[in-house]
Amino acid sequence: MQKSESASSLGPGGLDLSEAFFRPIASAGPPSPTKRHTKISVIGAGNVGMAIAQTILTQDLADELVLVDAKADKLRGEMLDLQHAAAFLPRTKIHASVDYAVTVGSDLCIVTAGARQIPGESRLNLLQRNVALFRNIIPPLAKYSPETILLIVSNPVDVLTYVSWKLSRFPSNRVIGSGTNLDSSRFRFLIADHLDVNAQDVQAYMIGEHGDSSVALWSSISVGGVPVLSFLEKQQIRYEKETLENIHKQVVNSAYEVISLKGYTSWAIGYSAANLARSLLRNQRKIHPVSVLAKGLYGIDGGEVFLSLPAQLGRGGVLGVTNVPLTDEEAQKLRDSAKTILEVQSQLGI
Amino acid sequence: MQKSESASSLGPGGLDLSEAFFRPIASAGPPSPTKRHTKISVIGAGNVGMAIAQTILTQDLADELVLVDAKADKLRGEMLDLQHAAAFLPRTKIHASVDYAVTVGSDLCIVTAGARQIPGESRLNLLQRNVALFRNIIPPLAKYSPETILLIVSNPVDVLTYVSWKLSRFPSNRVIGSGTNLDSSRFRFLIADHLDVNAQDVQAYMIGEHGDSSVALWSSISVGGVPVLSFLEKQQIRYEKETLENIHKQVVNSAYEVISLKGYTSWAIGYSAANLARSLLRNQRKIHPVSVLAKGLYGIDGGEVFLSLPAQLGRGGVLGVTNVPLTDEEAQKLRDSAKTILEVQSQLGI
Amino acid sequence: MQKSESASSLGPGGLDLSEAFFRPIASAGPPSPTKRHTKISVIGAGNVGMAIAQTILTQDLADELVLVDAKADKLRGEMLDLQHAAAFLPRTKIHASVDYAVTVGSDLCIVTAGARQIPGESRLNLLQRNVALFRNIIPPLAKYSPETILLIVSNPVDVLTYVSWKLSRFPSNRVIGSGTNLDSSRFRFLIADHLDVNAQDVQAYMIGEHGDSSVALWSSISVGGVPVLSFLEKQQIRYEKETLENIHKQVVNSAYEVISLKGYTSWAIGYSAANLARSLLRNQRKIHPVSVLAKGLYGIDGGEVFLSLPAQLGRGGVLGVTNVPLTDEEAQKLRDSAKTILEVQSQLGI
Amino acid sequence: MQKSESASSLGPGGLDLSEAFFRPIASAGPPSPTKRHTKISVIGAGNVGMAIAQTILTQDLADELVLVDAKADKLRGEMLDLQHAAAFLPRTKIHASVDYAVTVGSDLCIVTAGARQIPGESRLNLLQRNVALFRNIIPPLAKYSPETILLIVSNPVDVLTYVSWKLSRFPSNRVIGSGTNLDSSRFRFLIADHLDVNAQDVQAYMIGEHGDSSVALWSSISVGGVPVLSFLEKQQIRYEKETLENIHKQVVNSAYEVISLKGYTSWAIGYSAANLARSLLRNQRKIHPVSVLAKGLYGIDGGEVFLSLPAQLGRGGVLGVTNVPLTDEEAQKLRDSAKTILEVQSQLGI
Repeated sequence: MQKSESASSLGPGGLDLSEAFFRPIASAGPPSPTKRHTKISVIGAGNVGMAIAQTILTQDLADELVLVDAKADKLRGEMLDLQHAAAFLPRTKIHASVDYAVTVGSDLCIVTAGARQIPGESRLNLLQRNVALFRNIIPPLAKYSPETILLIVSNPVDVLTYVSWKLSRFPSNRVIGSGTNLDSSRFRFLIADHLDVNAQDVQAYMIGEHGDSSVALWSSISVGGVPVLSFLEKQQIRYEKETLENIHKQVVNSAYEVISLKGYTSWAIGYSAANLARSLLRNQRKIHPVSVLAKGLYGIDGGEVFLSLPAQLGRGGVLGVTNVPLTDEEAQKLRDSAKTILEVQSQLGI
Repeated sequence: MQKSESASSLGPGGLDLSEAFFRPIASAGPPSPTKRHTKISVIGAGNVGMAIAQTILTQDLADELVLVDAKADKLRGEMLDLQHAAAFLPRTKIHASVDYAVTVGSDLCIVTAGARQIPGESRLNLLQRNVALFRNIIPPLAKYSPETILLIVSNPVDVLTYVSWKLSRFPSNRVIGSGTNLDSSRFRFLIADHLDVNAQDVQAYMIGEHGDSSVALWSSISVGGVPVLSFLEKQQIRYEKETLENIHKQVVNSAYEVISLKGYTSWAIGYSAANLARSLLRNQRKIHPVSVLAKGLYGIDGGEVFLSLPAQLGRGGVLGVTNVPLTDEEAQKLRDSAKTILEVQSQLGI
Repeated sequence: MQKSESASSLGPGGLDLSEAFFRPIASAGPPSPTKRHTKISVIGAGNVGMAIAQTILTQDLADELVLVDAKADKLRGEMLDLQHAAAFLPRTKIHASVDYAVTVGSDLCIVTAGARQIPGESRLNLLQRNVALFRNIIPPLAKYSPETILLIVSNPVDVLTYVSWKLSRFPSNRVIGSGTNLDSSRFRFLIADHLDVNAQDVQAYMIGEHGDSSVALWSSISVGGVPVLSFLEKQQIRYEKETLENIHKQVVNSAYEVISLKGYTSWAIGYSAANLARSLLRNQRKIHPVSVLAKGLYGIDGGEVFLSLPAQLGRGGVLGVTNVPLTDEEAQKLRDSAKTILEVQSQLGI
Repeated sequence: MQKSESASSLGPGGLDLSEAFFRPIASAGPPSPTKRHTKISVIGAGNVGMAIAQTILTQDLADELVLVDAKADKLRGEMLDLQHAAAFLPRTKIHASVDYAVTVGSDLCIVTAGARQIPGESRLNLLQRNVALFRNIIPPLAKYSPETILLIVSNPVDVLTYVSWKLSRFPSNRVIGSGTNLDSSRFRFLIADHLDVNAQDVQAYMIGEHGDSSVALWSSISVGGVPVLSFLEKQQIRYEKETLENIHKQVVNSAYEVISLKGYTSWAIGYSAANLARSLLRNQRKIHPVSVLAKGLYGIDGGEVFLSLPAQLGRGGVLGVTNVPLTDEEAQKLRDSAKTILEVQSQLGI
């Protein structure tokens, strides 16, 4: 990284303290070549990228944090704003550059960049512009960090995760989409808020496409370890399918609602991505609903498709997919979700 | 809080689970009246207010977090965006309302609201509009939380902290301006970046006005416990006053630079305010350079003026001001800084 | 607290710095009477008590931590050993005394004191000695902190929680036994270790007596949200009851095993108690299997008995008990567990 | 590691869940060879070793934690006791073995093992037995983890750090003694307790030998950035040398006092070692007073000697030694301290 990307430019008259301040010890050797710190790169310094970067910084998940964006001014402003907090945080090296070389040796690259919809533009046209954008993002990331894990956050996340997999030529366990990890948190929050319990006591997954065709796994929801559907049955509580569908609709509608109210979503996706980063880099082997290569699972065929399934994540990326028993209806919805994504994909010619 | 401010509105057909799910135990009593959780209210849901709220949430500093803003839509969007992360965080109750009643019983109220400068508007006119705004903010905060601590972040912070003190009629130990706490972090970062040390090993204060007349306390800077100025003297390193002044200028210029690059500052002030919230609410008795009533200290006279001094903060607010020995030059600059603020204040008629 | 209980005894020639170092600000008032920090008292400075105290300190759960024990020397040694770490931790005020007055105003009192079995002594005789001990512990705790929550860790925990409830005359929601919270963590660890998943993804409860008659709730175990028993059925995996019973036996045997290997248990119970302290004091509304007054729940009758049920914990203590559906066999075992405890209790004459 | 070292031994009839529970995804590759998690080994499972291990676990500093001790039973008991807390902590893989092979690929090895003094045994004889012990510890550690950093905690720490350096043949930057890091924390606590400030606001070093000849660096103590000695001079506070010496004596006496009261020290050394582990493994570049090869620094000559100096620590181990200006008296004491250690060392024939 060039000195100009650093914060300090005290000029030739700067304090010549550093050499005077520290002295080497005798018989010292180089740091061990295998001792590597943890490095995370965030591509895109917009509202989503910065919420992710800031949450990662606050949660002390990386020893080095890199920002890449095409807008040099905005980028430097965001870098400085984070660096200025140094006295309040554990030390994290923070860099920023318009040049992907700065990402070299990343353990995790989180891609949030994306084109904005032009009024009157078709969804397909927007997607094609995003694919063009990814052609400039993914290959350099893969080149500078051939061992990295790619976490795709840009939308439509499932298709763009597939695109990233193809463009990177990485094995599938190292290409992950944030998928329905956030939808599931929203789902858990709504149930927890209704019952006045801690959302961490609620187990509830949304799987499938991150979007309108997502599938709520009602049959495996549990609260404090109590399976909710069988609880309702045993308690002979009137089980209204319509009510459950309303909750699902509210989850699906959440992103639209926040966007209509504040113009974009940022905080929750920031926490969601940081949550995934922790499981991956700290080898937590936790299960998250994220977008993975789903071909051959749950009867999904017809092509290589990424969509969200409850996957176990660790230092190696995706370690496996949970073999959740689905009801016939849930399985059918999942296959429909796959079909929806595949149709879009087929139009891309990638 | 009205139900409409909550996230869930599942309607009359909503799951009737809550009562079925939990049963009371025998012989239970009410929770103890003196057992109070920690509640923080943030006034103003703009970039600064939200960076503060989100950092407080991530750092788990409150059991209840309240947002107040005049824009109902924006406010609800921000509240939902934070709530949606519930599954990734310890449980914090998050509310939002345009009505100050929601702040009742706060332990800490952080005020970030402020009028924006209209092109061509004089600084005095802007300040007068801000004072008018504070007349609508501070009295309701003081009414609903007569025991709270007020932390003022809005600019010009020193004058508005004075205004808040007058409007609240609180004792001075419970009215604090964020002042130069952030400037000092920037100062520490620049020195640390130059020496390649951890910024937490650098002790360095900016005091006085948060702004152009701030005073860098060169005589008390230490790195890893080593007083830097006497180190330079003993090492016979050429001590260039000009160089030090350049660092000071860079600190003063930091906010302007970030604003010109990204349009506003947010992250660093978010961490700074969360850092103060921790010292205050967790009774840390730590020393921070913040804006306090400085009358009678360091020869400051001529009126009641708030400016930043190294103050010890704890559950009672300001516990005392460190009796730092200043050089004659530093003391004179501090008094000049006070004079600058007092002149502005005198025009307000408050 | 008397000065002699503090660490510093610099004598009459001590540095007279404190007054010179800080100066008061003008117009300051007293700290607000309702602003109270969080105070935890740990009774008993043995291996269990100290593991709890140290974990609470590391996890930064209290602003003030108090140790009480009958052995003044040991107590002062433990206090100093914790205090010496001050530079490595957020500030927590640490006190220790043989006098219960030091516990005044505690938010939570954790009782770990207990008599040791004399070779040849009957369990009943041991229990009676423990009851005698508690007559000297609980009333002073209740006197100095009438609003506190009591968390009983000493064994046999269910009976001693009942005894503490009677001696304190507190409402039942403020008297809790650590119960099977730790057994459940062991249960979750064994399942997680077997499946190579994160134990936090395993929901599994042990309820009933903390001891040989505890009940494993197989019907509500889930891993990553997947109910395990129904999973096994649907996958047509051979369901061997004997295997499940072996895991249960291994959990029940865990404490005995650790005691036979290292002489006592300490770390896991330390984390368990700190985990409960967090849910209680930070108002987490989380569900934990802990010993609560179970009279009238799940068909338990025959007297006032404390045993572990999945209870929701918050700032008010026990907020409710989860209405988990039990199989007939599980419900019967639970009632048998209650009967076992009641029989012991009836011999105490309390 | 052999299966017998793991906690689970469910036998041939164990649940055959793992394979059924997770399914592989298509086109997955192996985890990247360069992606390594953080592994810490603690040698010696006594009070000190276990306090260190438990603090590292609570502070989430490692992805894998290994215990080695000669006593197999005690070792397994401690391992199980930590593992049983899995549900309360982020996932850390915990192993234990009497065989050093379990330490393979450690990033940091913390050595706490040491022989106990036999009544009537000379200090030299005890030291020679410890050297013999280290001949069995250090070479296997260096063999299984040739890139590791060695952190020596066993006493006499300075001589045993030298011994470890010789036995490992490591470059000097990768062999560190915990030295006076803890003495300095005690020093900071005593000053903070006296002034009623946060110990983290006190900068104060003890350097030289960890023991009776340690040197208190009065000239560089600062509180909240205020150099204390010059403060006292400027405030014309009576500066009693005797008083300062009393504080120094109290620090030197601290370990003896805790040992006489509770039989050993554990908690504070646990936090001290975890504090060093964080700076080393998270590349914090923080300055700590630790035992490093001091030859050629501050006029120390006469041989290769390890003693504590303020050293900057990061992922490469010791990055440099702060060039603190010492008074003539302090420098002389430091050289005397070095001489004391060298005399002992010369008797070892290593």
